[in-house]
Amino acid sequence: MANLSDIEIASQVEMDPIQDIAASVGIPEEDLSMYGKYKAKIDINNMKDLDDASQRGKLILVTAITPTPAGEGKTTVSVGLVDALSNIGKKAAIAVREPSLGPVFGIKGGAAGGGHSQVVPMEDINLHFTGDFHAIGAANNLLAALLDNHIHQGNALNIDTRKITWKRVVDMNDRQLRHIVDGLQGRVNGVPREDGYDITVASEVMAVLCLSNNITELKSKLRKMIVAYNMDGDPVTAGDLKAEGALTALLKDAINPNIVQTLDHTPAFIHGGPFANIAHGCNSILATKLALKYADYAVTEAGFGADLGAEKFIDIKCRLANMQPDAVVLVATVRALKMHGGVKKTDLNEENVEAVEAGLPNMKKHIDNIQNVYGMPVVVAINKFPNDTDAELAVVQKACEDLGVKVALSDVWGKGGDGALELADAVVEAADQPNNFGFVYDLEDSIEEKLTKIVQKVYGGDGVEFTRGARKQLSELERLGFTDLPICMAKTQYSFSDDAKKLGAPTGFTVKISNLKVSAGAGFIVAQTGAIMTMPGLPKSPAAERIDVDENGNISGLF
Amino acid sequence: MANLSDIEIASQVEMDPIQDIAASVGIPEEDLSMYGKYKAKIDINNMKDLDDASQRGKLILVTAITPTPAGEGKTTVSVGLVDALSNIGKKAAIAVREPSLGPVFGIKGGAAGGGHSQVVPMEDINLHFTGDFHAIGAANNLLAALLDNHIHQGNALNIDTRKITWKRVVDMNDRQLRHIVDGLQGRVNGVPREDGYDITVASEVMAVLCLSNNITELKSKLRKMIVAYNMDGDPVTAGDLKAEGALTALLKDAINPNIVQTLDHTPAFIHGGPFANIAHGCNSILATKLALKYADYAVTEAGFGADLGAEKFIDIKCRLANMQPDAVVLVATVRALKMHGGVKKTDLNEENVEAVEAGLPNMKKHIDNIQNVYGMPVVVAINKFPNDTDAELAVVQKACEDLGVKVALSDVWGKGGDGALELADAVVEAADQPNNFGFVYDLEDSIEEKLTKIVQKVYGGDGVEFTRGARKQLSELERLGFTDLPICMAKTQYSFSDDAKKLGAPTGFTVKISNLKVSAGAGFIVAQTGAIMTMPGLPKSPAAERIDVDENGNISGLF
Repeated sequence: MANLSDIEIASQVEMDPIQDIAASVGIPEEDLSMYGKYKAKIDINNMKDLDDASQRGKLILVTAITPTPAGEGKTTVSVGLVDALSNIGKKAAIAVREPSLGPVFGIKGGAAGGGHSQVVPMEDINLHFTGDFHAIGAANNLLAALLDNHIHQGNALNIDTRKITWKRVVDMNDRQLRHIVDGLQGRVNGVPREDGYDITVASEVMAVLCLSNNITELKSKLRKMIVAYNMDGDPVTAGDLKAEGALTALLKDAINPNIVQTLDHTPAFIHGGPFANIAHGCNSILATKLALKYADYAVTEAGFGADLGAEKFIDIKCRLANMQPDAVVLVATVRALKMHGGVKKTDLNEENVEAVEAGLPNMKKHIDNIQNVYGMPVVVAINKFPNDTDAELAVVQKACEDLGVKVALSDVWGKGGDGALELADAVVEAADQPNNFGFVYDLEDSIEEKLTKIVQKVYGGDGVEFTRGARKQLSELERLGFTDLPICMAKTQYSFSDDAKKLGAPTGFTVKISNLKVSAGAGFIVAQTGAIMTMPGLPKSPAAERIDVDENGNISGLF
Repeated sequence: MANLSDIEIASQVEMDPIQDIAASVGIPEEDLSMYGKYKAKIDINNMKDLDDASQRGKLILVTAITPTPAGEGKTTVSVGLVDALSNIGKKAAIAVREPSLGPVFGIKGGAAGGGHSQVVPMEDINLHFTGDFHAIGAANNLLAALLDNHIHQGNALNIDTRKITWKRVVDMNDRQLRHIVDGLQGRVNGVPREDGYDITVASEVMAVLCLSNNITELKSKLRKMIVAYNMDGDPVTAGDLKAEGALTALLKDAINPNIVQTLDHTPAFIHGGPFANIAHGCNSILATKLALKYADYAVTEAGFGADLGAEKFIDIKCRLANMQPDAVVLVATVRALKMHGGVKKTDLNEENVEAVEAGLPNMKKHIDNIQNVYGMPVVVAINKFPNDTDAELAVVQKACEDLGVKVALSDVWGKGGDGALELADAVVEAADQPNNFGFVYDLEDSIEEKLTKIVQKVYGGDGVEFTRGARKQLSELERLGFTDLPICMAKTQYSFSDDAKKLGAPTGFTVKISNLKVSAGAGFIVAQTGAIMTMPGLPKSPAAERIDVDENGNISGLF
């Protein structure tokens, strides 16, 4: 078979009308708002029983070992798994994040699974989809315009223009906008100040939308978002600017989850896409609840590795949504384990059984966390790559068997759902096991206690320290009463520690908190270690240069 | 009857499913791409006969006398007229612009007609609609990101960073972004330079989309857009940045016209919304062609007064689309004529017959232009306001009758289509009359000749002069070969002259061109007189503060 690109594979599959996909799990057509023939939004305002836990299917969380530049293919495995669950006769659905537009034109060229495990229509999902991110960007930027207009019109709220925390956003990789000065050229053109842009997925509005259980909660969270501090050091909120109604109006459609399909015609709820560092990195609560309402097995995903994404999934999303997983899938690859075992990216194609073995402690630590910290049954999915050798794969399989952990090879890139039938069986079995689900920390713990518990229990470190600035921010958050919120840890995804170079399963480290900030609308404290990039740039040769459209409107160059 | 707001009136009318609206003029359901139940896009890629002039209905252009701050209600009359045409048994449709999101949160709070002459669903049309403007903004901003990335990565095209003409855009009234410095804080964060934002409707991408007859032409025009000049003074285009394919991909859905309905269930093609000063201010060519294909009477509109919008409609849009109107409706109001006759806005509610008479020369000059410069039959529509007295209205009617011009009272705000039945009859009659349609200038004329013809023939002035800078720009445009393009005049809409204070029908003036710029993609030369605002600001008390959403997702506070 020729080496087809993702968009070529996707274009060879005839999609079913989205009404049929929805009907296959019992969603009535009158609840759908169509966006063309293959996309729809589902109106949540008519659904009163979304919060009824007794009506829910099993929730399967897909997470991964510590990621490496080799790529672990978590979304691809998630899509393949849900198709496999359908193939073995289960009523299944997937709930995952929407891709961001910016990176499509950078290196990646698209993000909706890959190979024969994709969600479609992939070109729409990767471009504007149903407009959710544009709506979020507009809401974010309306708030910014209202804020600067308030200052321009006399600043009755006494905002300190040196302490404005609200940035504008654009869904584009545009480094030129990271640091700007605006309001220039005289008194009719605003008030000069330092400013900057984030990419849309980093907007707190994104996190708020994804963590809202209904439109009333959405408006309430939007109102609480802090945009600046006044000259007394007290927070100024979107509510102070009377902005929450207009912002909610801009988001009234965006809050409704989207339904599309996998290449195997399984329903896919794709909704929301908050950053996985400064935000919690999961699809919306509402999409997950819809999947749970209509499917017996709802597969969902969390960003980065099981130390970061899964921890936030549990401690932030599950806590706010009053839900919990029934089983956890840990995606591992031979390539990533080899890197954790010391192999360079350029040498990954050579067989190296010893390196796989040397990398195993990373996987084992994640398994231990899932079982003993999160209290969940775990299944390891080895995402197979073409250059993996039998000997290498055997090492991973044996390691799991020695631990008494179910393990299954997954070849979903090449085979779609048929490449994960064994995984699906294992997941069904795991989800029937009893679990001992629990949070890593209690909301009543102090901020420092919460951080310490995460570091000690999940990361395997000794504890936390704070920079002087962060220590001051900690006192300030305590003074303002932001103590009973969950923590959103923003650290490197490449290590259990806060040092990207410490691969495997490091010990004997502390995690240094460099910045503490409340996202008062989303409802969490962001703890940063090191510098976090919230506006990517384009590479020397952007993917945009290779994207094209023919005279009939067909797109090429998305991968 | 209580004084209902637009959104209250709109919410009392039960909309028909958009498939039924489309079917009422013969548009098959398979050509529709649904956006919810009441909005759809129409796929132009399947339509091969859009350019067949023999299949077209009659085109009715609605324009107005010189606008005043009193408001003339052109869109409202257009909507009422098309409903009236339907009511008298004609197969009719309207093609008008999409409103911009920014102003919704400023003073206006919405723009989709008014009273009982609206297009619906008005809250959707006023918010994100089908995402066209977001797509245009994304395309504009991707090009900006590619441009700055090119410079950052080594500037192989030798771009002069002091001569970058491409601005970023946002669909928001945000004065803070008019003048900025970006690329700050070191070499990893771009290259510092002066920059600025326009509102999205001012983007050349908007004009390009609206002037493209198909997707191939769209891509070709996008390629030609000039983003900067290099150190030799030669243009650098989107094509030089290899951007046109990706931009077209972002616009592949946006180029398809939208269909909605009026409150009387007449089909409304609402598509595109270029600025009426630095761009041509008309809905898309494709929307107008769709209306002409499916309706026997297609009502459309041009921005500002008949000296500006109608002139550009004829000399730019009709020329590029190979179409022409069959009749022109000139909207006049007693209030505006009183202002042209010297009355202040605060005194408009008092009867003042003399002032109406004193204002008539403005209307007469427009009538003369339509008949003798554009060569078209004209019908005057007096848009009735509650405070107009019979004596005042009689003055306008008599003036028209003295000229042998059909005139009809229009009360569409209060009565919808039933308020314009007489107008509809007059329009049908006028459209059957022979016409002597012609352009104001030939493309072969020099830029100066074109400008002079517009000023002398349409404005009634003596000629043009140029600032020193504009004279230099003129030579430069001639050196670069941009001589055979139509002119897009950007002057005040409040006077025939370039002085907003000269009301009525001034003579003995020259028009001073302060800036000449080519929009090489859209395909016109923008001639500016005075300062043109391309990024509005918010007022002291923005409409955003009064917009709200209830727990069921219903919006209030849009007008």
